[in-house]
Amino acid sequence: MSTWREAYYKNTPTSKKIFTRSQQLHINGVSHNIRYYEPYPFVTDHSTGKYLVDVDSNRYTDYWMGHWSLILGHGSNKILKKIKEQLSHGWMYGTVNKQTMELSNLISKAMPVAERIRYVTSGTEAVMYAARLSRAFTNKPIIAKIDGGWHGYASDLLKTINWPFTEPESSGVTSDEHVVSIPYNNIEDSIKILNSVKEQLAGIMVEPILGGSGGIPAEDDYLKSLQEFAAKSGSLFMLDEIVTGFRLGYGGMYKKIGLSPDIVTLGKVVGGGMPIGVICGKKEVMEIANTSKMSRRRRCYIGGGTFSANPVSMAAGAATLNTLKNNATIYEKINSLGKQIRHGINKILNDKSQITGRGSLFMTHFPKSATIPIRDAATASECDQDMLYNYHMYLIAREGIFFLPGKLGAVSDAHDKLDVKDIIQATERFAADELKR
Amino acid sequence: MSTWREAYYKNTPTSKKIFTRSQQLHINGVSHNIRYYEPYPFVTDHSTGKYLVDVDSNRYTDYWMGHWSLILGHGSNKILKKIKEQLSHGWMYGTVNKQTMELSNLISKAMPVAERIRYVTSGTEAVMYAARLSRAFTNKPIIAKIDGGWHGYASDLLKTINWPFTEPESSGVTSDEHVVSIPYNNIEDSIKILNSVKEQLAGIMVEPILGGSGGIPAEDDYLKSLQEFAAKSGSLFMLDEIVTGFRLGYGGMYKKIGLSPDIVTLGKVVGGGMPIGVICGKKEVMEIANTSKMSRRRRCYIGGGTFSANPVSMAAGAATLNTLKNNATIYEKINSLGKQIRHGINKILNDKSQITGRGSLFMTHFPKSATIPIRDAATASECDQDMLYNYHMYLIAREGIFFLPGKLGAVSDAHDKLDVKDIIQATERFAADELKR
Repeated sequence: MSTWREAYYKNTPTSKKIFTRSQQLHINGVSHNIRYYEPYPFVTDHSTGKYLVDVDSNRYTDYWMGHWSLILGHGSNKILKKIKEQLSHGWMYGTVNKQTMELSNLISKAMPVAERIRYVTSGTEAVMYAARLSRAFTNKPIIAKIDGGWHGYASDLLKTINWPFTEPESSGVTSDEHVVSIPYNNIEDSIKILNSVKEQLAGIMVEPILGGSGGIPAEDDYLKSLQEFAAKSGSLFMLDEIVTGFRLGYGGMYKKIGLSPDIVTLGKVVGGGMPIGVICGKKEVMEIANTSKMSRRRRCYIGGGTFSANPVSMAAGAATLNTLKNNATIYEKINSLGKQIRHGINKILNDKSQITGRGSLFMTHFPKSATIPIRDAATASECDQDMLYNYHMYLIAREGIFFLPGKLGAVSDAHDKLDVKDIIQATERFAADELKR
Repeated sequence: MSTWREAYYKNTPTSKKIFTRSQQLHINGVSHNIRYYEPYPFVTDHSTGKYLVDVDSNRYTDYWMGHWSLILGHGSNKILKKIKEQLSHGWMYGTVNKQTMELSNLISKAMPVAERIRYVTSGTEAVMYAARLSRAFTNKPIIAKIDGGWHGYASDLLKTINWPFTEPESSGVTSDEHVVSIPYNNIEDSIKILNSVKEQLAGIMVEPILGGSGGIPAEDDYLKSLQEFAAKSGSLFMLDEIVTGFRLGYGGMYKKIGLSPDIVTLGKVVGGGMPIGVICGKKEVMEIANTSKMSRRRRCYIGGGTFSANPVSMAAGAATLNTLKNNATIYEKINSLGKQIRHGINKILNDKSQITGRGSLFMTHFPKSATIPIRDAATASECDQDMLYNYHMYLIAREGIFFLPGKLGAVSDAHDKLDVKDIIQATERFAADELKR
């Protein structure tokens, strides 16, 4: 019997009632599969600063932070002010607008690889179009992705997401035969697989830190080898920075590693919590989607969409980037807090866990064998998932600390040193209650 | 030499300058292909009520209305108030939230077919998941769509959009072999094609009014025949109501026609101008996406996404639907204005044009031969596109009336009888200047 379940039921009767109704209205009661967890997710009422508050007035220190999009915390005043200003000038134009210019100037200055930009409405869309661009540019069909790599729900890359990476992820997808999958941080085996499809390879798509699969950073040499292979084989090197872009420092993570990707996708942080997806890339590649220059037969037809470059997302994104650019200490602060949390939890859980992540991102794993280092989605998946779920539910129900159960945590500028102390002490109590029995 | 070009250049020098910079930042200067038009699109500064205002302070009576999403006009106070209230409670939770409940209660009450709902971030996503659901539910691969049907940019249905419907729409798409296309409003030929793929047919996807392809309503009998064929062949009947849902009346258009679709997609109006896509459908079908009930092998894995069911889109959508529900005269008003515009323009252009549309939607076509009735995307495509472009540019440059050139217009609650008079008089001047020379 867990030590948190009773507390959870006791604290969340209104959530239970509303969620029961939600299940009558929505598939599984949710609008994103990962938002469901047993016995039922609490129902959010509002959010502010570092807190999520549920409909029973429970307040949680939030490390989920809107799928890691809220680097300045919930309801940041600097963003709020700009959103409100924008709202009084309209929130939906459906036309070229001046609000787009500011965000694009910021992104292109911070990320020289963004020689051309296109805005879409979600990360799923951004990656779908990146895949299409690579296929169109190279006139080859195959995309290589990572075992456990998550690039949204688009049909094109809905493969090898969940361990053991051999089963279909979904029924009803007809287009996954043009995807191959390679083992993360394993140069030799990856190159072997890439070599076997070299002639047909349109591009390689990789996250510099595996997000959904556990916050595991790629080794620099691994990414460099993939980039080198892509260049040699005439395919594109595509970095999915939807999680990492402007998260570890101002700009893309690629710069620090010394990479030069052909396409970079962004989302989350650059929208300030408002809906956004961004495809950035080298001019030569991106211009194949220019419908004024390319024949219909040659052109790559990408979105767009009704809500692309809507002025609210543009304003929220620009407010976020301006804040980050003008306050360099934010990255120092959140990266330091992340480091302290990783070290602090590691010290307590010791040989029972491994902590992954980088900068403000952190993730606790409970390996079944302490000797296996977690370096990819396979080793992460072999960890004790029940224990991780128990850990996160314990934090939710007894400590008022929220992680989406099983998922990576992110520190925001709304967090502070006391939160580090709190989560470490909470982890200590969890260890005493659940690990040492 | 056109009679509008000089005026356009004269009125929009700042737009020209900003757009030149935009082309250095963005693919073709835009974030949606259709937002580009010759010689360059004006750049929007702000919007209010029925107006778009550009960076040179030109004010346009707007019939594009945010890709037809703004049924209450730009910056509607009723929506604005609710958005602002929501913003002070946070704009991004990434969790189940109470704001979703209100919108879902409204949709499910207005549309009994919405036995289960899932929110996504765009119409493109909604249709992609609808296609996937039909394939998963039936375990068959083929989707039938309409010649000229537009269902967003997702790879799954990116086919037979532009006349003559025989060429690929895009390079880089690997998954369009599982799509067949049928001629709109032509029962006999459609059934012939459907019969030829009957054993492999997962579903039929159709807009009750062709949106992107010219505002052409389907004949009721045509839709009923498709629905009947789907039922007989064990495939799903899917209605794409992203344009028509809550546009012609409160609820889906399917109800008035007497249809019972298995899946209905919504967007635009139900988000109040904030990013949204909705998949609605019968419980039996939708539950195949329930990840708690279905095995990984059987389940249909659909989004979701970071921004799905975000509280701002939910609040803006609920404010819109509540306003429409509590003010039944809005539909009477905008449908009547639409009718007056269609009749008024028709009277002036006479045998030079055909006006399509229904309710508040209207579209002017310039057929090359007056004898061919416009009943599908093929007959619409054979019209004089240059004349349509000239007409819309004349309205923009000389009359301060905005249509996205070549696209359907929509009346909103911010329009009034004077706007009807204005557009009819403007059309009269256009006819005198451009048609009678």
